Amino acid sequence: MRKHPILVGLGKRIRELRIERGWSQENFANECGLDRSYYGGVERGERNVAAINLAKVAEVLGVRVGDLFPD
Amino acid sequence: MRKHPILVGLGKRIRELRIERGWSQENFANECGLDRSYYGGVERGERNVAAINLAKVAEVLGVRVGDLFPD
Repeated sequence: MRKHPILVGLGKRIRELRIERGWSQENFANECGLDRSYYGGVERGERNVAAINLAKVAEVLGVRVGDLFPD
Repeated sequence: MRKHPILVGLGKRIRELRIERGWSQENFANECGLDRSYYGGVERGERNVAAINLAKVAEVLGVRVGDLFPD
């Protein structure tokens, strides 16, 4: 799929928060219960992530779902 | 699908914002470029809405995507 700006922004923000917390991409994906390759695509803005997966990611990061979206 | 609490909260919040702005469900769905029946399911918390549709809804409501998610 074409990279949509909202997905690129979302992926960058999630990546930033994950790294701040010291998770590797693989461990973080496992902790969220997401496939590692799928999760890599999320960070690259290649996945049109749906609300339930956003909620899993937000929970592991300890933020609100709304905080995953850049302003 | 089972209604997930995050989807129920999201649907209620979107419905609230739509009504505040005086849109009918049908006109709002059209404005967002979403199928009316799909959109009804979003408000009822029955759809696992993905980021690009969240962005369309937020744009028409004039809010940030993060504002669609209850605290």
